[in-house]
Amino acid sequence: MESSSALTLSQLPYVYSAIPSTNKNYHFWPARKQRNSQLSTRLQCNKMFVPGFGEASPEAKAAINLHNFFTYTAVKIVAAQLESYNPEAYIELMEFVGKHPLDDGDKFCASMFRESSRHKNLALRIMEVRSAYCQKDFEWDNLKTLAVKMVTDSNTRLMREYVSETSRAENEN
Amino acid sequence: MESSSALTLSQLPYVYSAIPSTNKNYHFWPARKQRNSQLSTRLQCNKMFVPGFGEASPEAKAAINLHNFFTYTAVKIVAAQLESYNPEAYIELMEFVGKHPLDDGDKFCASMFRESSRHKNLALRIMEVRSAYCQKDFEWDNLKTLAVKMVTDSNTRLMREYVSETSRAENEN
Repeated sequence: MESSSALTLSQLPYVYSAIPSTNKNYHFWPARKQRNSQLSTRLQCNKMFVPGFGEASPEAKAAINLHNFFTYTAVKIVAAQLESYNPEAYIELMEFVGKHPLDDGDKFCASMFRESSRHKNLALRIMEVRSAYCQKDFEWDNLKTLAVKMVTDSNTRLMREYVSETSRAENEN
Repeated sequence: MESSSALTLSQLPYVYSAIPSTNKNYHFWPARKQRNSQLSTRLQCNKMFVPGFGEASPEAKAAINLHNFFTYTAVKIVAAQLESYNPEAYIELMEFVGKHPLDDGDKFCASMFRESSRHKNLALRIMEVRSAYCQKDFEWDNLKTLAVKMVTDSNTRLMREYVSETSRAENEN
């Protein structure tokens, strides 16, 4: 069922591009970029079909990972702030981090909330920091640039390594 | 050493904001937004200090995670494409995925390159797909929107859960 819908979706753009642009039936399509639900549905069909993500999109899956990463970063930020002017709270935080895994950020904050009233304040601060960090400090454009560059560079490197290996093997033979 | 530089950095903006705007010594600062290395260095100081990321920035760390995620997604895309029109290659790909972990995308592609010439073609295709996917299909703006919303929603939910728990406990007492 899933693959059949995928096929229909992926075939659509080719049907669309096969329509000559002079076709008079399509003269009502806006030439300028415009928010049109019909148009945007057709444009989405140009994308590759990504299966097996259930109800969540790949973007949502990546956002969950980033969400936990922001909690981890917020703990680091708060720890660095406390280290200099509140060593007791810093020790308390580090002890808690040692006992509780940080891979699930929300679970970590929820347990911290219930540890003691001092921990509750720490948890509130971590939550505040992760919110401020992801909204203001985190460089989203930089993330995109770095990730795209990483894929391009890795592809080049992998191919270069393979070619140099095989040409070496050929030379030895 | 690291924490002392952090302190200096985090204190700078407050020193800066304490300077009255009428101070004549600062009249040479441009009023308009301008690419000025001195100014941008000062603006960066408004950010929270994130320690312990070594030479890589948090953005670079997040990009590494996304890089592996893109390889994982590319494998899913290629598998879905092969399933319908090339069942043999699909089985070969799935067998390889079963034997090799996908947590390190580059390592996965490198081993696939060296498995056989058919696997090499599959690896090339996966690399091509991950490059196209991250550049064209992946919705970066959507990722930001989702991640920011997730942090805000989680913070609200965690606080609501805690308040409802404590108020219930108080009512029972």
